[in-house]
Amino acid sequence: MLRIVKIGGNVIEVEKELSKFLSLFAAISGPKILVHGGGKKASNLLPKLGITPHMHNGRRITDEATLEVVTMVYAGLVNKKLVAQLQSLGVNAIGMSGADANSILAHKRVVTDIDYGYAGDVDKVDGKMLTALIDLGLTPVFCALTHDKKGQLLNTNADTIAATIAEGMSPYMDVELNYCFELPGVLKNINDPESLIPKIDSDSYKVLQEDGIIATGMLPKMKNCFEALKGGVKIVKIGNLNMLEPNVELFTEIIL
Amino acid sequence: MLRIVKIGGNVIEVEKELSKFLSLFAAISGPKILVHGGGKKASNLLPKLGITPHMHNGRRITDEATLEVVTMVYAGLVNKKLVAQLQSLGVNAIGMSGADANSILAHKRVVTDIDYGYAGDVDKVDGKMLTALIDLGLTPVFCALTHDKKGQLLNTNADTIAATIAEGMSPYMDVELNYCFELPGVLKNINDPESLIPKIDSDSYKVLQEDGIIATGMLPKMKNCFEALKGGVKIVKIGNLNMLEPNVELFTEIIL
Repeated sequence: MLRIVKIGGNVIEVEKELSKFLSLFAAISGPKILVHGGGKKASNLLPKLGITPHMHNGRRITDEATLEVVTMVYAGLVNKKLVAQLQSLGVNAIGMSGADANSILAHKRVVTDIDYGYAGDVDKVDGKMLTALIDLGLTPVFCALTHDKKGQLLNTNADTIAATIAEGMSPYMDVELNYCFELPGVLKNINDPESLIPKIDSDSYKVLQEDGIIATGMLPKMKNCFEALKGGVKIVKIGNLNMLEPNVELFTEIIL
Repeated sequence: MLRIVKIGGNVIEVEKELSKFLSLFAAISGPKILVHGGGKKASNLLPKLGITPHMHNGRRITDEATLEVVTMVYAGLVNKKLVAQLQSLGVNAIGMSGADANSILAHKRVVTDIDYGYAGDVDKVDGKMLTALIDLGLTPVFCALTHDKKGQLLNTNADTIAATIAEGMSPYMDVELNYCFELPGVLKNINDPESLIPKIDSDSYKVLQEDGIIATGMLPKMKNCFEALKGGVKIVKIGNLNMLEPNVELFTEIIL
């Protein structure tokens, strides 16, 4: 079973959390892939360089100057630090963007009412190449950048990258996808960690949406989960770092 | 024959030169590796972030804040832009630092009269892993960063990285190393491009040094050339972009 773990900014930015995550990830036996967001580092750097960050519905609007900064932060600083730290834990990590080895081909998002700029929507993941890298004993570590094979790097949502890699790997091996974020899973009451929903399927998802329990930022994440499952991914879970502990059953599992 | 090409800042920073280089590099048939410096982009960014660049004998002194910036610029911005552009030319490039796939192991330079900070001296190149990547049809593109396998990234001179990769690959295939810089090769008179020295061996190198023709910045480059040759590299050449044109014999070849 290939384990694909996506971590967000909250894990990367808190040294203690990151250190705990890296140990847990290193301890996962068998093939694995890490996908990481960039978090606040890019947003913090932008104003220092005189660039104003723009967001729409939680997604970044990427002009050329912003793309340069996210390329520096995601593919440079964050990715290489993670790779170096995983290497120290005995994981033979290889840091990648979607341009590297042409692993994630995307196209610039079509402009509708909103122009997201250099934002990429994924067309194709080269699962065969990633399988070959894994067969060499490597652990790919992906930042949230793709390319259009016409020379343009594109900023792509890290959750979406994790889901599409999981789908792209499914013809080659059984895949488990883990979304690791700040909460123990999907909660009935966001203020009560005890209100964890252990399992969500398509039907209960509809009800949870209607009841307003799943809303805003969780909607695209849930969409990614269901698309991964429809694309052949065997197991999809959402939770916090505890999800990576062996024998801990605290997470939300998404099923079709 | 594996062709390893090192390009410096002068090629990266001038769009027309970069575009010419990329076409010539893409046209090289057979296995190849690109090694690139970072040029002035890091030096330009440092003061914007309130960091003062420090140099000693043409080598950067790398404190923690500077290491973060060079990691962003070398491994992020410069490396990924090169990879994306090579992909558009049909080269299946994969961008790497020495931490990626544990390809270049180094140690922090021992402090003597100068403390270079997070500067790395290379211990070992994993030629076997790089050969496996090349066998997958990939073209590694290296930035000038290494690691110590204890979690620390290290800033390493790009000329030295090119030479040590060339040495590390020599047990696996015949290697040609090309240093591509702003001059057509080693010149008798730096102001006269016609004064190109077509061939330099250990003996003539001594004379050129005594005569002051080879001095300052050229000395470590020449040292890298001779060390590569002693390490089993078959061909070592210094020149400008013309060196990459087929059937152009304008360069300085270094022989033992």
